[in-house]
Amino acid sequence: MNLKRYLPIFQWLPHYQRSTLTRDLLAAVIVTIMLIPQSLAYAMLAGLPAEVGLYASVLPLVAYAIFGTSRTLAVGPVAVVSLMTAAALGNIAAPGSAEYVGAALILALLSGLILTLMGLARLGFLANFLSHPVISGFITASGLIIAAGQLRHLLGVEASGHNMVMLLTGILSELGNVHVATLLLGGGSLVFLYSARRWLKKGLLNVGVASGVADMLTKAAPIVAVAATTLITWHLGLDQRGVAVVGDIPAGLPPITLPGFELGLWRDLLMAALLISIVGFVESVSVGQTLAAKRRQRIDPNQELIGLGSANLAASFSGGMPVTGGFSRSVVNFDAGAQTPAAGAFTAVGIGVAALVLTPLIAYLPVATLAATIIIAVLSLVDFPAIVRTWRYSRSDFAAMLATIVVTLVSGVESGILAGVGLSLALHLYRTSRPHSAVIGRVPGSEHFRNVERHQVETVPHLCILRVDESLYFANARYLEDTVMDEVSRRPDVKHVVLACQAVNVIDASALESLETINHRLDDAGVVLHLAEVKGPVMDRLKSTTFCEELTGFVHLSTYSAWVALTQPSNAIYPEQSACSNAQALTLAHDLPEGSLAIAPASSFSPKTEQQSS
Amino acid sequence: MNLKRYLPIFQWLPHYQRSTLTRDLLAAVIVTIMLIPQSLAYAMLAGLPAEVGLYASVLPLVAYAIFGTSRTLAVGPVAVVSLMTAAALGNIAAPGSAEYVGAALILALLSGLILTLMGLARLGFLANFLSHPVISGFITASGLIIAAGQLRHLLGVEASGHNMVMLLTGILSELGNVHVATLLLGGGSLVFLYSARRWLKKGLLNVGVASGVADMLTKAAPIVAVAATTLITWHLGLDQRGVAVVGDIPAGLPPITLPGFELGLWRDLLMAALLISIVGFVESVSVGQTLAAKRRQRIDPNQELIGLGSANLAASFSGGMPVTGGFSRSVVNFDAGAQTPAAGAFTAVGIGVAALVLTPLIAYLPVATLAATIIIAVLSLVDFPAIVRTWRYSRSDFAAMLATIVVTLVSGVESGILAGVGLSLALHLYRTSRPHSAVIGRVPGSEHFRNVERHQVETVPHLCILRVDESLYFANARYLEDTVMDEVSRRPDVKHVVLACQAVNVIDASALESLETINHRLDDAGVVLHLAEVKGPVMDRLKSTTFCEELTGFVHLSTYSAWVALTQPSNAIYPEQSACSNAQALTLAHDLPEGSLAIAPASSFSPKTEQQSS
Repeated sequence: MNLKRYLPIFQWLPHYQRSTLTRDLLAAVIVTIMLIPQSLAYAMLAGLPAEVGLYASVLPLVAYAIFGTSRTLAVGPVAVVSLMTAAALGNIAAPGSAEYVGAALILALLSGLILTLMGLARLGFLANFLSHPVISGFITASGLIIAAGQLRHLLGVEASGHNMVMLLTGILSELGNVHVATLLLGGGSLVFLYSARRWLKKGLLNVGVASGVADMLTKAAPIVAVAATTLITWHLGLDQRGVAVVGDIPAGLPPITLPGFELGLWRDLLMAALLISIVGFVESVSVGQTLAAKRRQRIDPNQELIGLGSANLAASFSGGMPVTGGFSRSVVNFDAGAQTPAAGAFTAVGIGVAALVLTPLIAYLPVATLAATIIIAVLSLVDFPAIVRTWRYSRSDFAAMLATIVVTLVSGVESGILAGVGLSLALHLYRTSRPHSAVIGRVPGSEHFRNVERHQVETVPHLCILRVDESLYFANARYLEDTVMDEVSRRPDVKHVVLACQAVNVIDASALESLETINHRLDDAGVVLHLAEVKGPVMDRLKSTTFCEELTGFVHLSTYSAWVALTQPSNAIYPEQSACSNAQALTLAHDLPEGSLAIAPASSFSPKTEQQSS
Repeated sequence: MNLKRYLPIFQWLPHYQRSTLTRDLLAAVIVTIMLIPQSLAYAMLAGLPAEVGLYASVLPLVAYAIFGTSRTLAVGPVAVVSLMTAAALGNIAAPGSAEYVGAALILALLSGLILTLMGLARLGFLANFLSHPVISGFITASGLIIAAGQLRHLLGVEASGHNMVMLLTGILSELGNVHVATLLLGGGSLVFLYSARRWLKKGLLNVGVASGVADMLTKAAPIVAVAATTLITWHLGLDQRGVAVVGDIPAGLPPITLPGFELGLWRDLLMAALLISIVGFVESVSVGQTLAAKRRQRIDPNQELIGLGSANLAASFSGGMPVTGGFSRSVVNFDAGAQTPAAGAFTAVGIGVAALVLTPLIAYLPVATLAATIIIAVLSLVDFPAIVRTWRYSRSDFAAMLATIVVTLVSGVESGILAGVGLSLALHLYRTSRPHSAVIGRVPGSEHFRNVERHQVETVPHLCILRVDESLYFANARYLEDTVMDEVSRRPDVKHVVLACQAVNVIDASALESLETINHRLDDAGVVLHLAEVKGPVMDRLKSTTFCEELTGFVHLSTYSAWVALTQPSNAIYPEQSACSNAQALTLAHDLPEGSLAIAPASSFSPKTEQQSS
């Protein structure tokens, strides 16, 4: 069982069948065709030699096939992680230099170690602290930065920077030096790719091509653009006329590499590796979960960490770069009918063959074509409607999203994501520090209680039932003191305060002190404090303290039983019991015969009277 | 009204009476006698010349009397803040040097600005993020460090450091150089002060002295120790034989000082000033609130920030040091009958006279006597039982407390308090990221629902009611997805899932996406999702989205109405209504005639049947 848990390959390999093989092989061929230009492009985006992208798409895929839990996730270099890689390495060395390539290996190694350790420590929940709006804002901003950064390759000008301001000012100042041939190749590719994505499938369907084939041809558009522009460049000798090309790539399988150990460098890259790991994990897991749900499969987030960690470790030992599960390629893999992670392993073989055989052909591939591929791919990540939706639903979520977008655009990816996480946590803490609470009354004819300001409900003047809508912890404990005392000082008739605790999931030590303070202050004012609907785990804790003994009133099972007890003359029997034993009696009320919860018969029930407890 | 709010002096000065004057004057005399040795001692604790303590006890008291809201709080140098001052200034300059004294003025200025700005921005709630266990642990650890630090003065040896390890190793290595005369004076004072605190009042009461007088004589013990050891030292010329004395102090009123402006120094002191401000504010406000509650007065935390801020600003412009409200002196002030902040102003006059007249007499005061005063004062802050209480009540509160104590002792006050706040926030976030949830059933014969694992309740196989015990936000949204899907996969009979949301105070954008995901996944599995007990503010938000339309089930007013609807044949009418209009109909249910909530008569109610919705 443990073997299957940590090596998910044993869940499917023993049952592997010929029919599955056929479908996996077909999916692998399609993904390979899609992955070749993408790998080259994302390596370039990360500032690395193009072949590094291919290397990162071989062994990491095999590692994920062994350790990953998603059946259809396709791993490799992806846009956002490549952008983050470029931002991290830009501070360390010059793009393309040997130090830069070496630092990429270290980044992949650190990322792999972090992911694997998080998986072993079952820390997958940490990824949840990246809220949806922050991720969405981050990906939108990253998409815009990536697109802006590729503009220079499309225009054939020099400009650098990892944020929008630097990129755009750099490009604007170079507009006079646009290289026409480069722009024609890149612009042509861009128009072609955009048209293919927008109209090709529809057009093919219209002329009677089968849906599956039309889909596949559409996905193959990038490879067509790559082949066509490479041929044109080679034929016209455009590389001699200033069109930037990929250039000579060493043909061969991924090399075995050993990431260098240099403590200072490791420390410099650690924060970037952590952020890359978490962003990559979140992106990958959400793709994996979406696809798994469609086929009623489940993925295990903690094992996913180990799967992605092993993929990154594999990348670092085979001349690669940080990798994660990609959205578009996984969807293609799924749609093409991949059944098991074997499809990923077969894709690895396909990319390996490409690295061995196709690399000489890529020498004349214009960089502008790759830039066009990237722009088309990332613009689909930019989600402006999500910004509007978030604004409409929640101002604080919107604030976190906006902070992420603005800081990412202005200052860079690392600060952007940290600003988003920081602000969303701060806003969450601020909100819980001033908890909503409501004075509630009885919905006529029911045992149900609702906010007096929103519903027409019954109340009695000597009784104030306050529903506390938040767990009580240090940040809001004092706020509750103020709320209760304010309510009591506004209503001099009140003799009993009931705190309805159905929303209170925890009372921490600070809040316990506040409750004791409230109890004493109310006692001084001649008001009795009761609790109602205290949950089991909370009650267990309270029983271990002296609070129950000090409590002037009682702990009632439900708001309704508190209401009955405090609006009936029969409540005069209460003071002879101790609050604590009463609390226990009430939490054990299920042992009583049915109906005994209603202390007095419902016919004698008389709200709106002003009787007071003795 | 605004004048009274920002200048609370106008709340009491216009009604000031002769009888109040008498009581305030008496209290001022007693507090002055107590404050003289304390001021000298805490200035020494902060590494400052003794007179700085006196200066910090004049104008700041007047400022607080004008701007503060507590009637009885006594402001001045206090132990913990002085320790934090010493820790902050120790990195800047040599104790006692002119730069050191100047930096203390800047620290008071920054602290004053921070407090005042926080007050104007109404940021008093920020102090709530210092939980009780963290404060308690911090004060205990500070007390131990202060006591250890004063040991060297008691023994007459040299040792320095702001953490326990440095102090104790320093003192141990110097044990061979103990100065006997110093030890005799200091040890004698210590024994005398301890005995006075422990037995003097009891003894005086036994011989028939009135309680009030006995109390006052006990409080005067430190001034007796100061006078006696000063006389002995002067008489025997012990200062010539190596007993460290306070030395010549310039006689005179507090000087007017202008804190220097040096950007680098300000930046270095900013973090320390922030921590001093918050710790001082928390200590002061809790003393103020405790005393105010005893006399049914209220204090306004945000105005308190302004009051303490103005006191620190006054300190910075009159040769002082950071100040705040002190516990023991405020209690003495309160017990001595102080009625208004005028008592504080009168105390300021008393200390001013002391600075003018008594300073020549203090020259022969042994430092060891002041050390004994400090040790006796701070050991009462050390609260070991609180550690045990916290351990029993809550392991996570205990962890935060222990981290605060250990880090404060080992590494210093700033790291200690930051570690405590950081850990308590992290533990809080961790807890809310894995929320408690419970499958609930009906308490027989009631409309009340409780956890099936803790209570004997009714359930039906086709219905799963899940109570979610936490607000839904980004950190726990995905956890809920897992919980719901696990529950459904364990119980194949389930056709309806009801999420009982009485504890859900917020559903943020991330959680909304998770609810949509749950809804779709359950729909794919042929299970209908319902919500119940959704609170008003949460429902308002949900109505602004398409969630209600997409929801396969309904939003029920109460868990009971969901139970009735889903266990009665009459529920077949539901699917003809839209979920969203139904949600509105139900939240408006109070408009219906009484009793109409129970959709079917109670007699036809049949739990434990397995009928399913059409």
